[in-house]
Amino acid sequence: MRLSRYLLPLMKESPADAQIVSHKLMLRAGLVRQTAAGIYAWLPLGLKVLRNIERIVREEQDRSGAVEILMPTMQSAELWRQSGRYDAYGPEMLRITDRHDREMLFGPTNEEMVTSLFRDAARSYRDLPRTLYHIQWKFRDEVRPRFGVMRGREFLMKDAYSFDMDEAGARHSYNRMFVAYLRTFARMGLRAIPMQADTGPIGGDLSHEFIVLAPTGESDVFYHANWDASAEPAEVDFDDAAALQGVVDGYTQDYAATDEKRDEAREAAAGNALRQSRGVEVGHIFYFGTKYSASMGLAVQGTDGTRVNPHMGSYGIGVSRLVGAIIEASHDDRGIIWPDAVAPYAVGLINMRVDDAGCTAAADDLYARLQAAGIETLYDDRDERGGAKFATMDLVGVPWQIVIGPKGIEKGVVELKRRATGEKVELSADDALARVRG
Amino acid sequence: MRLSRYLLPLMKESPADAQIVSHKLMLRAGLVRQTAAGIYAWLPLGLKVLRNIERIVREEQDRSGAVEILMPTMQSAELWRQSGRYDAYGPEMLRITDRHDREMLFGPTNEEMVTSLFRDAARSYRDLPRTLYHIQWKFRDEVRPRFGVMRGREFLMKDAYSFDMDEAGARHSYNRMFVAYLRTFARMGLRAIPMQADTGPIGGDLSHEFIVLAPTGESDVFYHANWDASAEPAEVDFDDAAALQGVVDGYTQDYAATDEKRDEAREAAAGNALRQSRGVEVGHIFYFGTKYSASMGLAVQGTDGTRVNPHMGSYGIGVSRLVGAIIEASHDDRGIIWPDAVAPYAVGLINMRVDDAGCTAAADDLYARLQAAGIETLYDDRDERGGAKFATMDLVGVPWQIVIGPKGIEKGVVELKRRATGEKVELSADDALARVRG
Repeated sequence: MRLSRYLLPLMKESPADAQIVSHKLMLRAGLVRQTAAGIYAWLPLGLKVLRNIERIVREEQDRSGAVEILMPTMQSAELWRQSGRYDAYGPEMLRITDRHDREMLFGPTNEEMVTSLFRDAARSYRDLPRTLYHIQWKFRDEVRPRFGVMRGREFLMKDAYSFDMDEAGARHSYNRMFVAYLRTFARMGLRAIPMQADTGPIGGDLSHEFIVLAPTGESDVFYHANWDASAEPAEVDFDDAAALQGVVDGYTQDYAATDEKRDEAREAAAGNALRQSRGVEVGHIFYFGTKYSASMGLAVQGTDGTRVNPHMGSYGIGVSRLVGAIIEASHDDRGIIWPDAVAPYAVGLINMRVDDAGCTAAADDLYARLQAAGIETLYDDRDERGGAKFATMDLVGVPWQIVIGPKGIEKGVVELKRRATGEKVELSADDALARVRG
Repeated sequence: MRLSRYLLPLMKESPADAQIVSHKLMLRAGLVRQTAAGIYAWLPLGLKVLRNIERIVREEQDRSGAVEILMPTMQSAELWRQSGRYDAYGPEMLRITDRHDREMLFGPTNEEMVTSLFRDAARSYRDLPRTLYHIQWKFRDEVRPRFGVMRGREFLMKDAYSFDMDEAGARHSYNRMFVAYLRTFARMGLRAIPMQADTGPIGGDLSHEFIVLAPTGESDVFYHANWDASAEPAEVDFDDAAALQGVVDGYTQDYAATDEKRDEAREAAAGNALRQSRGVEVGHIFYFGTKYSASMGLAVQGTDGTRVNPHMGSYGIGVSRLVGAIIEASHDDRGIIWPDAVAPYAVGLINMRVDDAGCTAAADDLYARLQAAGIETLYDDRDERGGAKFATMDLVGVPWQIVIGPKGIEKGVVELKRRATGEKVELSADDALARVRG
């Protein structure tokens, strides 16, 4: 993409109400603009990151066996009356009356709707197990929206819902998501640690929050040093319940807790291996038994002919929140440092002198070759000073920068810079192309 | 995808309120389910079609030079007061009050918001021209929603907005979209005819509706027979304003009109070449000058230093409506006939006898090879009668069917059927794979 044809409005200073680094950088680098309190428009660069995150989430959901659907944003109050949650849900629910005075709401979550869809679709044990997911905009009317997309009112969420014949099946479905989440966050360059969370009235151990470590994160987290050495789960057969349980057991044996759930005994046991960091919650998985199937009349025929209320779980990932979380985890004082997997462009190509025919010919040629190689490139072809162009590329955080200037042209070289390390090398355009191709 | 792990709830009979064929077939084939009046959940098969349509729309918008953003669904009333439309817009606008008693609305369209975003981002003539588009859910509170996704309340729309320094520039931007639309619909297997539409108070000739011909479409259309022979626009340089104008002139010289805009003189001139059909509106493009830039204070510095209100246009495609429109254009009494480009799966693989080890081994093997070849396959591995499986594949309209049964196994052949023509051939699994690979 040529910057001369793009929409990339930068800000020199971020507004005073932007308190955290990801909020500041998303505004300064032209990723988003606020259009109302806690509501954001995604500008081209931000949208590309959002879509990359969404794609990784989708691929790992599919790999785990979940099936994608798409539920609407608007829901009828009637649906929520069936579960009893319409009156119980607080003022975060945006309640709406349509032109025929029907009570509606902008969905903050979809347990009721997916239970109702599955109630109409499933007849017997042969239709189970199933995990359905969707990636859709949600609305929660936060009393005090802040931190940019990290705690906005309209946000993009992946929510999945599992249906099983019994608790053992539900545990298998839960473990599928547990492993899918570890893979998802690792692919984005994040270190995510699952931490046991409140399960509410159902009890048991089937609820985890996934917290990514980020130096400027929202909350304190405490964990065993083994987590620093842990790797992303290897390829695993998601259909093999026993193997999957083994993977989950392996990951949950080491201590990790948020500030509210600290365990003095386990921290003492960890001793010198106890680590403290800050973190951002990016996912939450939860088993809730027959809460919705029983209250909403979802029952299927069991193998013995009796009617069974399926056991359910729900599994959320904050897709738009992850854009902020990744920035919290990966930035420096010059701007964002995108992990390769989610970067809006792989390469930033800088033409130092658009008024120099040789520079421009060389830059245009390399741009064409990068495009032909399928390498997404942000090409700064504007008539601006070199210093401004360097600052822009550092701010927007594209992983590789290639600089073409008159002196290099004379020597037959370009400059290749890795944003994360700052390492710079001079090499031929051919070699630069080979390096960024990886 | 194995049907034994999918969510494909079929209906034998469609509900009485489903009047048109696309609505009936979308319910019967398990593409969507209504969750409230005029609001639908997209089940897996329907979502795949919707995403394919969205992808083609996106690719052609990008090719024409438009830049993708994503605006939120919720908008503040304040924005619409700036243009004067908040009070003017009728009861189709879903008005909402948030917890702080601020007036909000679920966006039915985005002229105000995009004008506001561009107002903050653009400073001078160097920042123009730009065309921004997004693909986002909209809400229009239809008094009587009907025809399924063809006239629903929550619907997915691609809307683009162009910003130019003058009317000549705006005409170029308009022509980019005109040609992009012809390419978009042609790629979906549709014959779309642009028909001059009302321009409102601005006047001029810069407004067209795009109507696709469909035997069971919603309205009557009249056109010159030349349209039946017209081809999709060849590769064109979108930056070449004169060439683009030539393409548009070529396409608009032949008569075509909706029922409300018939021209007796031109119909008489067409004589025997006059054709009548039914059609479905799938796109609308529109130039509206400085209506929003002037009322909302969007002005940039011109080349001579004066402040200029950019000339704007807006360009819509009904993405979710297209799912219905394609079915109206392509179906028979057994079900949907998906054009290859938008089909949810390329191949439907039927195992006639899951209790026959030879059949199942052969079907599993071919399924694995289809997947390895990147051919999206819906694999009916359920324990059902062959007749039910044939009827299901015909109903859901997958372009190719491959049937594996015991007799074929003995002879070393499978049956390959083309859904659109009904043509069946027996051939080896290798040859079937080569045929569907195309």
